[in-house]
Amino acid sequence: MNRYQDIREAAYKANMQLPKLGLVLFTFGNVSAADRAAGVFAIKPSGVPYDELTPDKMVIVDFDGNTVEGSLRPSSDTKTHAVLYKHWEKIGGIVHTHSTYATAWAQAQRDIPIFGTTHADHNTVDIPCAPPMDDKMIHGDYEYETGFQIMDYLKAKGMSYEEVEMVLVGNHAPFTWGKTADKAVYNSAVLEEVARMAYLTEQIRADAPRLKDSLIKKHYERKHGPHSYYGQ
Amino acid sequence: MNRYQDIREAAYKANMQLPKLGLVLFTFGNVSAADRAAGVFAIKPSGVPYDELTPDKMVIVDFDGNTVEGSLRPSSDTKTHAVLYKHWEKIGGIVHTHSTYATAWAQAQRDIPIFGTTHADHNTVDIPCAPPMDDKMIHGDYEYETGFQIMDYLKAKGMSYEEVEMVLVGNHAPFTWGKTADKAVYNSAVLEEVARMAYLTEQIRADAPRLKDSLIKKHYERKHGPHSYYGQ
Amino acid sequence: MNRYQDIREAAYKANMQLPKLGLVLFTFGNVSAADRAAGVFAIKPSGVPYDELTPDKMVIVDFDGNTVEGSLRPSSDTKTHAVLYKHWEKIGGIVHTHSTYATAWAQAQRDIPIFGTTHADHNTVDIPCAPPMDDKMIHGDYEYETGFQIMDYLKAKGMSYEEVEMVLVGNHAPFTWGKTADKAVYNSAVLEEVARMAYLTEQIRADAPRLKDSLIKKHYERKHGPHSYYGQ
Amino acid sequence: MNRYQDIREAAYKANMQLPKLGLVLFTFGNVSAADRAAGVFAIKPSGVPYDELTPDKMVIVDFDGNTVEGSLRPSSDTKTHAVLYKHWEKIGGIVHTHSTYATAWAQAQRDIPIFGTTHADHNTVDIPCAPPMDDKMIHGDYEYETGFQIMDYLKAKGMSYEEVEMVLVGNHAPFTWGKTADKAVYNSAVLEEVARMAYLTEQIRADAPRLKDSLIKKHYERKHGPHSYYGQ
Repeated sequence: MNRYQDIREAAYKANMQLPKLGLVLFTFGNVSAADRAAGVFAIKPSGVPYDELTPDKMVIVDFDGNTVEGSLRPSSDTKTHAVLYKHWEKIGGIVHTHSTYATAWAQAQRDIPIFGTTHADHNTVDIPCAPPMDDKMIHGDYEYETGFQIMDYLKAKGMSYEEVEMVLVGNHAPFTWGKTADKAVYNSAVLEEVARMAYLTEQIRADAPRLKDSLIKKHYERKHGPHSYYGQ
Repeated sequence: MNRYQDIREAAYKANMQLPKLGLVLFTFGNVSAADRAAGVFAIKPSGVPYDELTPDKMVIVDFDGNTVEGSLRPSSDTKTHAVLYKHWEKIGGIVHTHSTYATAWAQAQRDIPIFGTTHADHNTVDIPCAPPMDDKMIHGDYEYETGFQIMDYLKAKGMSYEEVEMVLVGNHAPFTWGKTADKAVYNSAVLEEVARMAYLTEQIRADAPRLKDSLIKKHYERKHGPHSYYGQ
Repeated sequence: MNRYQDIREAAYKANMQLPKLGLVLFTFGNVSAADRAAGVFAIKPSGVPYDELTPDKMVIVDFDGNTVEGSLRPSSDTKTHAVLYKHWEKIGGIVHTHSTYATAWAQAQRDIPIFGTTHADHNTVDIPCAPPMDDKMIHGDYEYETGFQIMDYLKAKGMSYEEVEMVLVGNHAPFTWGKTADKAVYNSAVLEEVARMAYLTEQIRADAPRLKDSLIKKHYERKHGPHSYYGQ
Repeated sequence: MNRYQDIREAAYKANMQLPKLGLVLFTFGNVSAADRAAGVFAIKPSGVPYDELTPDKMVIVDFDGNTVEGSLRPSSDTKTHAVLYKHWEKIGGIVHTHSTYATAWAQAQRDIPIFGTTHADHNTVDIPCAPPMDDKMIHGDYEYETGFQIMDYLKAKGMSYEEVEMVLVGNHAPFTWGKTADKAVYNSAVLEEVARMAYLTEQIRADAPRLKDSLIKKHYERKHGPHSYYGQ
């Protein structure tokens, strides 16, 4: 049995969730799953339709972005994944999609305001939207720099990647992550729904106020705090 | 056979309707079904995905919120259900979802205006949106207080829970109820569609007028009055 | 074999198209099919879910609204159907739904502007929205008067029911008709799509101009004129 | 075996993708596939529902619009296809739909602004919207002139049909093309998604800026340039 079989299976299953959850058109998305002990991750091959994927087709890549195993080319976003795995030591899965509502907010270059408890159940802050990269980064190693753009923006905002597991890249689209690939996929679906609800909220009331701090804290802590008890 | 088998089955079937009707993402919703004679209700266990539910997994809880039977933890919203069952003696089912359009109105903290006969077939009033709770209630027994927030707001508006079977909780999401769990699920689906139509109506005409009283009365009474004859 | 078997089958099949085309929630719609020679029509029974319908359950009603055959109560909108069949001698099918976008325009009490060729392929005019009825009509024989409200409005606008096969009733919802029940269902689906496109068009450009006359005429005549040749 | 079997199959399969991708209601769309060596293309017959299509029913037409083989009438848009094949020598497939969001932009007579990388992965320019035709063209050979309207507008904008494989025809709907019928269908789905995202972007931020040149160039070239490496 292949030594990376576990992450091949995990990445395969997580990738197959994206079309089921309505988060991708054609091949506009990818998921990776990391094996921290081996220092590698399995990622979707580039341009392969979801209905032709198999665990064997996943590409094994190290945290510097070098292909370790696999005959297909890894996703063009592989270097972004590699940078995040290398610097964020507690994540085990990453997802990138162009899901419709989250991407619209990214194109508008706006943070997604926290308007309700659906959002607060998952985050205590507005979903951050990193600004588009400067031209030097774009002309350089673009996908590699995308990883740094994400990390630097969270750092500048004083946010921990362990608490805020999602970001929009301005003019581009969302990235999410988590302890596992499944959790990262879950976060992508939650982000898309929160983005859709926030859009509708502003349409219904242009000056809708942000959620007040006491509710933000209550909802986040009942799900994530030391005394968490949440589940619907 | 389990003495609570009837409400286990009723709660199970009603919960399974939520994903079919497009009212929930993941586990963001719950339904309960009450046995008035026994003074208990069956409710969805916390955090269990819909495709893993069975009637046996439903948790039996009394109207003070104490678990009577079941090895799983009941939904985190259980105390809200318990309070409503305890004080509203004629209801037999309760539903809580974060359905997209109803939740957007809740986030906008607006009542849903009565714009047409689809709404009037089910309610004679704007769907009420209770204000977010004050900080004392939030810091206290939050889910228990949510039940009182709902009851107190309906009372303040002079509305009967037997006539108005749905409410938005500001910044949170909708709750619906009814004589049975099935009726409460039906009300959740109607509310979501009414919320969607009202949103679109205001987009098409910003100053759309409320439905006139004669039409409100006519539509509601042909369905719910002593001489009701409605059905499509 | 039942003497009305043909219209029972036609009404049954046409009713079953409504949920497939996404035009109804629960039982919020109904279709009828007429037998002109026998002077009757078959219509959906009141309040029966679509998945429990059978041809046998259709109710046979004459053009004055009297039930001729059937043990179930006919749709509460039956008198509206009867009035239209009685006065519009060339129609063979009628559909009433509360489809989302068409109903939102009805609630906004606005005609749907003709913005493009999708609309012009089916109508040369803005889709008319009849005003809400006056209180005398509402307090009288409501469903019967609804039929007259529709007929009187088309007449006042100088429109022929043979050319304009769809209308919105203000604050209520759409009605469509046609030579057959199938054609009336087709018209309901076209109306819903045209209503959705017109809504989006105004969102994208608030002052979007109506389609110019030469294009209206060209598109309508290539499909409906004496030298029609249209089909995609 | 029929000498045009290859393009019959290609056109059939591509046409069947349209309803699966949610791009057509009823028969509101058509795809053709060309055989450059034989100087003909296979196109959907007029008015035949998708679930009754077979490869045998495709109509074989030459680049002047004459039917070469087939007993059914070709799509009413056949002359538009013929003109484009005749003048654009490197395309092998054409698609016409009335997909909802792209058609709404066409009805608004607006180019679709390039707001993000989803768009830039496929085009470096705003999606062009050709103005409605003048009355002389409309009264003349309408479908034939539609082809010229498309070609003339791209030429006036200085765009190459090999780089920009999609256009909106003002007040009408989109046309897309490509080296194969499959690629043209892919372009139709991408256009619809880009149209939807651009609509939402402007709703979320009315003055959303266009994507900056460096990002446009980067994304397009990583997918289409001489050193392309793109795939998700």
